[in-house]
Amino acid sequence: MSTRAERAHQFFLDLQDKITETVATIDGRPFQTDTWDRPAGGGGRSKVLQDGHVIEKGGVMVSFVTGEMSEAFAQQFPGRGREFMATGISLILHPRNPHAPTVHANFRYLEKGKAGDSVAWFGGGADLTPHVLYPEDARHFHQVWKDVCDRSEVASYGGLKKWCDEYFYIPHRKEARGVGGIFFDYLGIDAPELGGKAADLEHVERFVKDAGGSFLDAYVPILERRKNVNFSEAERDWQLHRRGRYVEFNLVYDRGTTFGLKTDGRVESILVSLPSPVKWTYGYEPEAGSKEAELLEVLRTPRGWVD
Amino acid sequence: MSTRAERAHQFFLDLQDKITETVATIDGRPFQTDTWDRPAGGGGRSKVLQDGHVIEKGGVMVSFVTGEMSEAFAQQFPGRGREFMATGISLILHPRNPHAPTVHANFRYLEKGKAGDSVAWFGGGADLTPHVLYPEDARHFHQVWKDVCDRSEVASYGGLKKWCDEYFYIPHRKEARGVGGIFFDYLGIDAPELGGKAADLEHVERFVKDAGGSFLDAYVPILERRKNVNFSEAERDWQLHRRGRYVEFNLVYDRGTTFGLKTDGRVESILVSLPSPVKWTYGYEPEAGSKEAELLEVLRTPRGWVD
Repeated sequence: MSTRAERAHQFFLDLQDKITETVATIDGRPFQTDTWDRPAGGGGRSKVLQDGHVIEKGGVMVSFVTGEMSEAFAQQFPGRGREFMATGISLILHPRNPHAPTVHANFRYLEKGKAGDSVAWFGGGADLTPHVLYPEDARHFHQVWKDVCDRSEVASYGGLKKWCDEYFYIPHRKEARGVGGIFFDYLGIDAPELGGKAADLEHVERFVKDAGGSFLDAYVPILERRKNVNFSEAERDWQLHRRGRYVEFNLVYDRGTTFGLKTDGRVESILVSLPSPVKWTYGYEPEAGSKEAELLEVLRTPRGWVD
Repeated sequence: MSTRAERAHQFFLDLQDKITETVATIDGRPFQTDTWDRPAGGGGRSKVLQDGHVIEKGGVMVSFVTGEMSEAFAQQFPGRGREFMATGISLILHPRNPHAPTVHANFRYLEKGKAGDSVAWFGGGADLTPHVLYPEDARHFHQVWKDVCDRSEVASYGGLKKWCDEYFYIPHRKEARGVGGIFFDYLGIDAPELGGKAADLEHVERFVKDAGGSFLDAYVPILERRKNVNFSEAERDWQLHRRGRYVEFNLVYDRGTTFGLKTDGRVESILVSLPSPVKWTYGYEPEAGSKEAELLEVLRTPRGWVD
């Protein structure tokens, strides 16, 4: 294991503490902590807040896994050989109030190949899923990520914003999952067919730390101003149906989720991303001209939020 | 289009009427009917019962589609060429009462290839998903299907029961979706690698009609005796979580659902199969020795229900 891997893992653990402490303070309820071992190598620490006052369901998970990929799986990644190690932080917060958006973020570091013949890269991103559209929230969220990108030698906000819109898309609904944010992968290696870009790993690491460290700036102001907005039963119902879309994306398309489920990952840590409760109603459509219809319009045609 | 395809389609339409009329009488609320056209050829008729007194969400869908498969997709099926036609009935009923099991059934007929050089087969099955285990319900359900198989020249209950257990399985939960029933595919063609079996299509058609016509016998007695059982809030909560498993199976593994979503099928008709409302709670486990734990035990180790 490299010192960069150790450093990234420690950064993710510290970030997990910082984020959960802040969110727990806002919520008034603590996260519960579970640590787990992976029989094939490594393990993780999951922090979960369930039935909070503000957060109806939330999880901030850190893992560090090592081992050998199957031959077929190894071929999908850059680098020779099947040995790998991966560490990452993944978080999702589903607030109770329909006016407060769901947020997701993930940052990860991977190495593949034997020592001396290995490749390494970072991936990650953050995206926002409102159920009631507040353009100023979307603008704030994107502005934070644009600033992070602008501070970095290795990240271009325009490219990462576009990648996010493309990734968090639900083809069968012809809708984006939310108003996006940033998404990147294979940052640090020359793999254009995967979206990867050769870059100094020192610079990439600095960018990822800056992004991780900016998560609370991106989300907390939004949560603070929406968490106590009065809402109607109809708005709550709309939220539960929008959560259905979130479930559809995660179970049908999300690579992390489907990969985890199909490779015997820790199911509880993977599916803590699913909101609860959730509804599906046949032919559920908002009225034309309503603010729900306006949100759908934005989800069907991703727009720019900052210059 | 062959006369067998026309005959199968008409049988499915009549069966849809018969099943929805019977269920609507039990429920006290009618199904709503939507007919739809498929731009590339064919269309369907969906009958949906939402927020009924007995059925919280249910759909009985018939479709008849014709066209050309993509080359890649065509190669996954027996027969030459890309032309195909398919007609089928698919139904799912999610009762409100946690003591009344969810039921699913599907019967379909397919032809592939040009006239004079085509292959044809039937597929289908029925399976039961209880949230509270009543062994007598599982026995009754299986006995009906065993009797149908025993009356047929082309179906062996043992094989179809096993296929059902294997198909409706959730690998990441290491659980069956329910207590099974029967499942078959490619019946009528010699395709052992797909589970298909050469058989006289007259015999197969008679078997499918007998099976479709037996659905109400298999399910209605169970629904009648469980629909009004008193239940606790804890039982309702358990039901909502078990419904989460149903969503996981349908969105992650069910071939019909994922195929439909990824090939631009009619989303509302495909996802009417999803129950509502649904819950996911991190680390949700029944108490040892409870009847919920007993159900899990059965789902983890499929058993025989009839001799």
